[in-house]
Amino acid sequence: MPQLVEAPLARFERVTQAGVAPAGFHATSIFPEYFQLEKGSWQLVRESRMDCTVVLEEGNDLSVKEFRRLQPGDLVACGRKENGEDGVFVHTDGFRFPSRPAEKFAFRGRLTRETSFSIDYDELYGLLRHERQSGFILWVLGPAVVFDRDARESFVKLIHAGYVHGLHAGNALAVHDVEAALFGTALGQAIYSKRSTHLGHYNHLDTINRVNGIGSLRKAVDLGHVTSGIMAAAVSRSIPYVLAGSIRDDGPLSDVVHDVLAAQDGMRALARRATTVVALATQLHAIAMGNLLPSYRVTDAGVRPVYFYNVDMSEFVASKLADRGSLTSRSILTNVQDFVVTLERGLREACV
Amino acid sequence: MPQLVEAPLARFERVTQAGVAPAGFHATSIFPEYFQLEKGSWQLVRESRMDCTVVLEEGNDLSVKEFRRLQPGDLVACGRKENGEDGVFVHTDGFRFPSRPAEKFAFRGRLTRETSFSIDYDELYGLLRHERQSGFILWVLGPAVVFDRDARESFVKLIHAGYVHGLHAGNALAVHDVEAALFGTALGQAIYSKRSTHLGHYNHLDTINRVNGIGSLRKAVDLGHVTSGIMAAAVSRSIPYVLAGSIRDDGPLSDVVHDVLAAQDGMRALARRATTVVALATQLHAIAMGNLLPSYRVTDAGVRPVYFYNVDMSEFVASKLADRGSLTSRSILTNVQDFVVTLERGLREACV
Amino acid sequence: MPQLVEAPLARFERVTQAGVAPAGFHATSIFPEYFQLEKGSWQLVRESRMDCTVVLEEGNDLSVKEFRRLQPGDLVACGRKENGEDGVFVHTDGFRFPSRPAEKFAFRGRLTRETSFSIDYDELYGLLRHERQSGFILWVLGPAVVFDRDARESFVKLIHAGYVHGLHAGNALAVHDVEAALFGTALGQAIYSKRSTHLGHYNHLDTINRVNGIGSLRKAVDLGHVTSGIMAAAVSRSIPYVLAGSIRDDGPLSDVVHDVLAAQDGMRALARRATTVVALATQLHAIAMGNLLPSYRVTDAGVRPVYFYNVDMSEFVASKLADRGSLTSRSILTNVQDFVVTLERGLREACV
Amino acid sequence: MPQLVEAPLARFERVTQAGVAPAGFHATSIFPEYFQLEKGSWQLVRESRMDCTVVLEEGNDLSVKEFRRLQPGDLVACGRKENGEDGVFVHTDGFRFPSRPAEKFAFRGRLTRETSFSIDYDELYGLLRHERQSGFILWVLGPAVVFDRDARESFVKLIHAGYVHGLHAGNALAVHDVEAALFGTALGQAIYSKRSTHLGHYNHLDTINRVNGIGSLRKAVDLGHVTSGIMAAAVSRSIPYVLAGSIRDDGPLSDVVHDVLAAQDGMRALARRATTVVALATQLHAIAMGNLLPSYRVTDAGVRPVYFYNVDMSEFVASKLADRGSLTSRSILTNVQDFVVTLERGLREACV
Repeated sequence: MPQLVEAPLARFERVTQAGVAPAGFHATSIFPEYFQLEKGSWQLVRESRMDCTVVLEEGNDLSVKEFRRLQPGDLVACGRKENGEDGVFVHTDGFRFPSRPAEKFAFRGRLTRETSFSIDYDELYGLLRHERQSGFILWVLGPAVVFDRDARESFVKLIHAGYVHGLHAGNALAVHDVEAALFGTALGQAIYSKRSTHLGHYNHLDTINRVNGIGSLRKAVDLGHVTSGIMAAAVSRSIPYVLAGSIRDDGPLSDVVHDVLAAQDGMRALARRATTVVALATQLHAIAMGNLLPSYRVTDAGVRPVYFYNVDMSEFVASKLADRGSLTSRSILTNVQDFVVTLERGLREACV
Repeated sequence: MPQLVEAPLARFERVTQAGVAPAGFHATSIFPEYFQLEKGSWQLVRESRMDCTVVLEEGNDLSVKEFRRLQPGDLVACGRKENGEDGVFVHTDGFRFPSRPAEKFAFRGRLTRETSFSIDYDELYGLLRHERQSGFILWVLGPAVVFDRDARESFVKLIHAGYVHGLHAGNALAVHDVEAALFGTALGQAIYSKRSTHLGHYNHLDTINRVNGIGSLRKAVDLGHVTSGIMAAAVSRSIPYVLAGSIRDDGPLSDVVHDVLAAQDGMRALARRATTVVALATQLHAIAMGNLLPSYRVTDAGVRPVYFYNVDMSEFVASKLADRGSLTSRSILTNVQDFVVTLERGLREACV
Repeated sequence: MPQLVEAPLARFERVTQAGVAPAGFHATSIFPEYFQLEKGSWQLVRESRMDCTVVLEEGNDLSVKEFRRLQPGDLVACGRKENGEDGVFVHTDGFRFPSRPAEKFAFRGRLTRETSFSIDYDELYGLLRHERQSGFILWVLGPAVVFDRDARESFVKLIHAGYVHGLHAGNALAVHDVEAALFGTALGQAIYSKRSTHLGHYNHLDTINRVNGIGSLRKAVDLGHVTSGIMAAAVSRSIPYVLAGSIRDDGPLSDVVHDVLAAQDGMRALARRATTVVALATQLHAIAMGNLLPSYRVTDAGVRPVYFYNVDMSEFVASKLADRGSLTSRSILTNVQDFVVTLERGLREACV
Repeated sequence: MPQLVEAPLARFERVTQAGVAPAGFHATSIFPEYFQLEKGSWQLVRESRMDCTVVLEEGNDLSVKEFRRLQPGDLVACGRKENGEDGVFVHTDGFRFPSRPAEKFAFRGRLTRETSFSIDYDELYGLLRHERQSGFILWVLGPAVVFDRDARESFVKLIHAGYVHGLHAGNALAVHDVEAALFGTALGQAIYSKRSTHLGHYNHLDTINRVNGIGSLRKAVDLGHVTSGIMAAAVSRSIPYVLAGSIRDDGPLSDVVHDVLAAQDGMRALARRATTVVALATQLHAIAMGNLLPSYRVTDAGVRPVYFYNVDMSEFVASKLADRGSLTSRSILTNVQDFVVTLERGLREACV
């Protein structure tokens, strides 16, 4: 691109106050960004995420740092132009989706529940089979996945089939999952028959109390107290997970990270490894993970896209995810109960 | 019931103005209703529907008549008490769902997208296999069923497997289905790849124009112009259908009944035969069919329930259906694309 | 535009079968469309609507005709290119909204419930005050407007203040409105206290039966049986209205047009006059009216935009309206109960 | 009640492990609960909340304690029967809503967007005017309140008029509010004109960076950097607030409590004082506050109800709040932009 030839070097300024960036700081997006550190040499930022600063580390390395981590003396990239004029180039169209023919008048330009998604299943079958071998598939789970017997069992099968490399969820997902293991219910309602059991709301509290009495979820599984479900499978297969706390939590389970900044750190550690993320029925966790997730990853083989699928019932949540900067996320509008069962079956059959 | 012993005979009054019931008329509900015509003899109304009058026909027969059909001289049942005091008994609890334990404090009393529905699939597999032999399964289809390749193909399989005895839909379902047959698109968007095709909105109009040029959908199928999809399958298997008009219609296809009262008559003819109804992603048609559908049917073997399932994405639509009197309908909150594919596969596998 | 200089004349072909256009017909959009009838002379179509044919009438006049109205011998414009190459030019950007700065990375690109709408109220106050004098304000009403006392009363005030020049609704709106006048309820629930009244569902049927006994809504108002509400105000002020039938209707009221094609004709007669349309809480009627409504009107003073506002609770409905071709509609996502009350108050205060 | 005469004393067991209740613990609900500590003497628990233990403190006092606060030696009430049989009586019907007539067949039994809410406004005007003098009105705010200019300004007026005694929100509400004060935008979109400003997403980050550079929101207001909006008004009027952290937070502002358990403690301190709570457009914070909020409060004048209003766009959120135990919450289904403006105006006018 001609304008890059004339571009200046990227400019860095020193942090003087912990947690505060110099005025005019450059903020990262979800896209690959290149910084001209020496004339003619543009360095791609690795392990990016949106809304962070770019810090020049020793050895001319660039790191993507949350504002809260900035220390006095850190050298923060400044300049907000995206086309090279500030020594920064934001590359948005490296991985392009097929563009639509530009009609003056056309129907069906929006994503809604009416948008077909057969093809998304087929693409996911191919993608996940590939990523199972050579990628890192990170799942972000809302509690709806364990409110239903079949969905819960299908997700367990996905774990055992090797399609789950990391998990992020909240306290509720874990508690309801273990309640199902101990009592067959979630919040007191049977996950198959839907019957409300007598004094069923105690099941929820008994679950937390019992696990915390044992010491942790991990211990409860290891000692054989919890023998079925998603958390048992994850623990027994040593799949890394982060259970992030929220103000809505009962208990919480002692495994839950109740400092949200510490939880973000744990989540970002997963996000750095992720090559495909699938978020199921959780606005909070999907947007939170979206904040931490770049649209690309630098591997030995070069730069590759990071896929981010979001499954939810509501157009609002799909739009909100994009409205919060996750511009490359793809949403499927359906109930995750169906989605998980169908996906698992499709992956299984496709393999035969 | 003791109160019935003392009950008076049902009272009937004459219609004096066409289309107008006498003051104090009794209106039907979705439930079985009994009228005491002679002391000790309570007659059950057959082929009922909500919000109609009950007319005493010759030979002491009772018919359920829309207000608009009333003719001067008709004898209309009067009296609004439901427990026999007016010679009328409304029987609401003949077919009971398992009741919930009455807790003072409990979670999860409402139907939402979080409510599990594994069991609904299992019950539907059993029910539909039974009804295929000895019932009448009526489907009420919104256009979403044909916006997606897999859902459309699965529904065609349901037809060929004998699970579809009647169809009710609107102009859009039929037109989009035929557009998919002719062009591979629905409203110009490919039903598998989701690509918008160039000048794609003409596909919609060309479809209508072509079919109407041939004369009718039926003819277009018979002459081999339309060889795939739901309407082709329905026509070729002589499945009765009613395509009801709405003010939203383009065209419409010449097969569409554009007088809504005539359409209601056609729909009620189907409703009279139905033993199970499944409505997919259509608020308008689901509520309309709900108005015509009683909760029971009198067969040679006695009185049996009529099942009414409604599949939709929104809690609002599920509630609205009940708010309009379809109190015994059961709603499943998911995308019909997934629902149809899963249901068809489940029925197929269950049969093996 | 240079390409127009070289453009051919528009091409017309004869209809040979009633209701069927010649192959290659041109279909209208919501936008102004110009046809080159003589070299250098481009004629703008008046009183357009989407998805219709353009017919060359005697005297070189162009009319926009529904397919179903085509008669053998009619001369229908053919050609589907939009930039003049077929003698047709579709002018999409005559009335432009301020475009957004094109950022590579930005938040909040979608319309959702989070989108602010203070400015929409302010623009509506100005617009409606202007249109009251010199335009034609057409309202499309869903029943939610009369389920709430304050909203219903506010709408009546809008009528009396001269902001309502035409009405389009369905049977339900009219019946619930009259039920409120006669019984203080809508479908049996009090429109202020929300209490369900004993045997309240009879109020609905008694309302229809009583009005049809009198002969018509118009007569019921004229004879003093119905003295409050929207329909009474509309009748007493001779505001033209179309009550369009649907298969969901009870009764219906004898004023309802139960042939949907006749109803469309009545709606289009209103749409031809409309300069601003406001649709409130009705997916069916909003999309139906959108089908009939062009984005412009030719007046003595020249070509002016037609404004189309849609107020609904759901992102899905807003998107669906655009997905069905009403690309210039503006949606406000809120409950019409609040909207009507706020709008009426704002118009009143702005006038002081 | 006769059964209470025969009831045993409440039973208490000792905690042996920190954070873990003895098996068979009694868990609190939202309702008033009475414990028989001596024969014939039933003590009402004060400052309750759902899903906690009841601990017998010195001096025969009862405290409601989260599981995580339990210390070895604490005496925890055990027994799960609610009608006195375990020495515990849960009193659910002290404050009753008018019950509905029990019809066999009726319309409109559910709460939906179609449910009228004129009366809710009127009741709120009366309630809030009363509570302003003698209660504690706690607001739970989602960010939608500050995305719109008029809603934001109306809420500021509510603060200055004395209707806001406590605030609970998240980082986003505070950041967007201050962004509006500094830049006139929220997440880069103008809160009145809706225009996206060039590089607008920097406004969000600049806001956080600037406030954290100053040291805190409180300081930013006190030093005159932030002069308008909700947070400025709250700070300047010394209204207690808790900004609770979530994993979705950017920054966050240094005023945000990023340990969710500490945040819950702060929230419960507000909940203990609250007599009326109004939650606006926030599922997370509404449910979280609902967890902490009993349905009653013990004052010098006796036991009074605590009112909990929830305003949201979606039936799902309203149902979910009840599904999570906030059984006495009342939901109004509308956009909070309209709600806040209308409420403020109504309170102002009612006072004249």
